[in-house]
Amino acid sequence: MTERFSFDLQATDGTARSGVIHTPRGDIRTPAFMPVGTAATVKAMLPGSVRATGADILLGNTYHLMLRPGAERVARLGGLHRFMNWDRPILTDSGGFQVMSLADLRKLTEDGVTFRSHVDGSKHVLTPERSMEIQRLLGSDIVMCFDECPALPATEEAVAASMRLSMRWAQRSRDAFGDRPGHALFGIMQGGVTRDLREESAQALMDIGFDGYAVGGLAVGEGQEAMFSVLDYAPGFLPTDRPRYLMGVGKPDDIVGAVKRGIDMMDCVLPSRSGRTGQAWTHRGQVNFRNARHQDDPRPLDEDCTCPTCQGYSRAYLHHVVRTGEIIASMLLTWHNLHYYQELMAGMRAAIAAGQFAAFEAAFHLRRAEGDIAPA
Amino acid sequence: MTERFSFDLQATDGTARSGVIHTPRGDIRTPAFMPVGTAATVKAMLPGSVRATGADILLGNTYHLMLRPGAERVARLGGLHRFMNWDRPILTDSGGFQVMSLADLRKLTEDGVTFRSHVDGSKHVLTPERSMEIQRLLGSDIVMCFDECPALPATEEAVAASMRLSMRWAQRSRDAFGDRPGHALFGIMQGGVTRDLREESAQALMDIGFDGYAVGGLAVGEGQEAMFSVLDYAPGFLPTDRPRYLMGVGKPDDIVGAVKRGIDMMDCVLPSRSGRTGQAWTHRGQVNFRNARHQDDPRPLDEDCTCPTCQGYSRAYLHHVVRTGEIIASMLLTWHNLHYYQELMAGMRAAIAAGQFAAFEAAFHLRRAEGDIAPA
Repeated sequence: MTERFSFDLQATDGTARSGVIHTPRGDIRTPAFMPVGTAATVKAMLPGSVRATGADILLGNTYHLMLRPGAERVARLGGLHRFMNWDRPILTDSGGFQVMSLADLRKLTEDGVTFRSHVDGSKHVLTPERSMEIQRLLGSDIVMCFDECPALPATEEAVAASMRLSMRWAQRSRDAFGDRPGHALFGIMQGGVTRDLREESAQALMDIGFDGYAVGGLAVGEGQEAMFSVLDYAPGFLPTDRPRYLMGVGKPDDIVGAVKRGIDMMDCVLPSRSGRTGQAWTHRGQVNFRNARHQDDPRPLDEDCTCPTCQGYSRAYLHHVVRTGEIIASMLLTWHNLHYYQELMAGMRAAIAAGQFAAFEAAFHLRRAEGDIAPA
Repeated sequence: MTERFSFDLQATDGTARSGVIHTPRGDIRTPAFMPVGTAATVKAMLPGSVRATGADILLGNTYHLMLRPGAERVARLGGLHRFMNWDRPILTDSGGFQVMSLADLRKLTEDGVTFRSHVDGSKHVLTPERSMEIQRLLGSDIVMCFDECPALPATEEAVAASMRLSMRWAQRSRDAFGDRPGHALFGIMQGGVTRDLREESAQALMDIGFDGYAVGGLAVGEGQEAMFSVLDYAPGFLPTDRPRYLMGVGKPDDIVGAVKRGIDMMDCVLPSRSGRTGQAWTHRGQVNFRNARHQDDPRPLDEDCTCPTCQGYSRAYLHHVVRTGEIIASMLLTWHNLHYYQELMAGMRAAIAAGQFAAFEAAFHLRRAEGDIAPA
């Protein structure tokens, strides 16, 4: 185990990259998908099961955790790792994005954001300094700068002003974070879909200096085409020797397209949230287990999958427990979905290392185009 | 593995008994507690986890399974064991009790019961013959006679008439079950809280001849004292060389009192249902994790418990996930509760084998009287 945070870029294939992030809590193989453990749990999963899917790192949400159970409380209890029984790396977001999407009565100033909790109406303040403090109290391994993500659609002028505010907050985040060996601070590039603003933002962040760089402000409803058009150039503005993190992405084809364009880390609630609504993801696309076509189907969800769900249960069973609203439906489908996502990442890592990413991508799209297996 | 169903009574201590039921699908150590897998799942648990708690056998509900997914469908899919991924013994109830408690528009005749599904209003008929057929289609290892359990309060006359109907149905169940090596049919004693009726019922069942005998019609709201007063004599009416099953019991102190009185098998939804409402059971009694007294408590639920919940999580965490309504709360508390119940059974088996049941029972009550541990 290393004592410091570092990134080894090990292979490239076109703009796609593979490597390893070293942290005192363990290595993170990149490209990495981070399951989301919103409120100190990856919903419907035990931590050992999350690890068994192949996850090297989880994401925790500062906004949710500061409200319940509270950052000071988590610190008194020994930090988030001990609290949620996950001893590997945790990345925490800054709270900024979720304040804007979830909290009530938000008020934004140069200093930060005041808001009321969506849980109990209590008043809270988030500033770059407080966000750094909360993430330190949680014990986060990878801390994110406090930033502002403008609601879309927005004028270019509004996007520029928001980006420059985020860059001033990035400097304040850097100053407040200080020097914490073994812990990393990531800057977040903003600038919407405007190339010049993205470049200006990247330069501002690099001038400050971070351990890694996120591409923020995407996956907020702009669509895959617009997102990819930004990813065609934005990662190139960032240093090659630091990890690049695309926040909140995404569907499997979003992920493959992002990795192709030079992204190293991603997170998304999709595999776990889908699993709680009867949806499964496979290399053949999405499968809806509410559909009655599965009710007599003795075959597994995915015959090629080695997860416990596919090894132990028929499609008929999954249909039954989805339709009856059983908790095991969420447990089995979330496990499968997270397993599939991690298999996808492992496949891309191997393909990049072998210089075969284009072939991997072609096969990925071909299998999806075939669609789900025909009714039994 | 034996090819036939058999029972080895291995030790007695007073009226308490311990032994092993042999089945082609594995042994069942008695006294045995059977977790309830209502709709082909022990709620919030994976089958491997249920087994890890020490369970040798599950209970499945004929009423729920005949409605969804349907007994014929389960049979086409290879039977209930394969369907729910549990390869050890399964006992199924007859459906009679739940028709009376859950179904709509019930109509009882000498032939059986017609009713409408509480799920979709569809019309169904249950008779002794159809109940035997459904339990055969499910692949049940231990089949229960179709019986009628009168709603309480009821006159002695009504209880007597109901019991005699159940005895006629027991004969029809026996005739319909036929000869199925490796599968067992249990009769169900009725007779309410009237000793003469219990004796008459037991004699009627023994005249027919069953592989095991259940004490039915208890745990339906009569209270522990009335239940124990029946158990003070009713098991003694049954043959010593066959297992005795007390249906739907119960709380830990109910279970200890029933074992003391000669019961070998029990089932109850309590440990799993409690786990889904933030309640835990320990040797110190019940603990409610909604209570704010746990919010800063770094200690495990039970410091002496070896279950994954107590090994990995603080009371503060359990409080947090119960209050935020996270699925992991149901998963962790159900696992602990089932583990505790199985530890309780293992403790009683060892105590009976050692001739120390009275000491075990005294210690059990003493620790409960001490109550939950004081706030941290």
